Amino acid sequence: MQLLKDRILSDGKVLGNGILKVDGFVNHQVDPLLMDACGREFAKRFANVGATKILTAEISGIAPAVTTAVHMGLPVVYARKNKPITMPDQVYLTLAPSHTKGRMVELIVSPEYLENNEKVLIIDDFLASGATILGLVRLAEAAGSQIVGIGALIEKSFEGGRDALASLGVQVESLACIKSLDNGKIEFVD
Amino acid sequence: MQLLKDRILSDGKVLGNGILKVDGFVNHQVDPLLMDACGREFAKRFANVGATKILTAEISGIAPAVTTAVHMGLPVVYARKNKPITMPDQVYLTLAPSHTKGRMVELIVSPEYLENNEKVLIIDDFLASGATILGLVRLAEAAGSQIVGIGALIEKSFEGGRDALASLGVQVESLACIKSLDNGKIEFVD
Repeated sequence: MQLLKDRILSDGKVLGNGILKVDGFVNHQVDPLLMDACGREFAKRFANVGATKILTAEISGIAPAVTTAVHMGLPVVYARKNKPITMPDQVYLTLAPSHTKGRMVELIVSPEYLENNEKVLIIDDFLASGATILGLVRLAEAAGSQIVGIGALIEKSFEGGRDALASLGVQVESLACIKSLDNGKIEFVD
Repeated sequence: MQLLKDRILSDGKVLGNGILKVDGFVNHQVDPLLMDACGREFAKRFANVGATKILTAEISGIAPAVTTAVHMGLPVVYARKNKPITMPDQVYLTLAPSHTKGRMVELIVSPEYLENNEKVLIIDDFLASGATILGLVRLAEAAGSQIVGIGALIEKSFEGGRDALASLGVQVESLACIKSLDNGKIEFVD
């Protein structure tokens, strides 16, 4: 998606160690019109997968998941990393590594909002190693739901996430696919 | 806003101790069409305050702030509760009590995205005691920004937040104002 790629080139910053800083328009400050356009694009690409629910992880997945949900007219559930007091004692819980925290974090979904036979579209900001998304897959499968598609705003193909998701056999879409951040330079897959 | 009040009456649950569970449509599962309608309503109510930026707090403020931002065409910043590695060392930081965590949490904004002379509209899911919103006010003021309005999806008037914000002298709007949750019954202000 050219709009997102252009924005990454103009405002993204390579911090080293494969880290791309996009907190000026994705995950601290959000450009709502860009995010809305990304949501519309996801809705178009996943129009025919039969999704009944969108699943993401707090925190930075929420903005793209909500704009996608608006365009698809589907409810969106964001997995929590801490169990709020409003959640029942019995929950779906899995562990996934956090890049920003440098440790494992919990991903928690209430059984009230992820039911048997749900067809789940996962939307997140990044597809890197795929570890967070595989955590969401485990939560959905624990609920007896079926994954029907996976979308990420930005894919870092050099971290191998797409291969990690291949065995799921579902449509995987990224709106900007980066093949290298070497030497501070952002290179997209053609 | 009747649509939100109706939804609170049909799907909200009073858990006792003044806690209203709305995680089926606001802050775990999100109804995107309801949230989009709320965003449109905030955009209408704050059309003339001259806002240049929307500020909220992760996590549950993100969805209503993003839909409001889409309708106003303004960037939205969500204060982080943990400093990600992509954030500079020098930040704006304040402490605010967390209802769900039962302790003080940090609210952090990067100076990159909250600048001097910004006119800030604060959007959050709840206005209860006003403590979180006052934390956001402190961050904005530390940055030299000016608060021009405050909007919350749901106000619990019996917790006194509106009084706590009165000295700011800005427009405060809630889309559903609850005067009592006594005896498990949700009563709105007329």
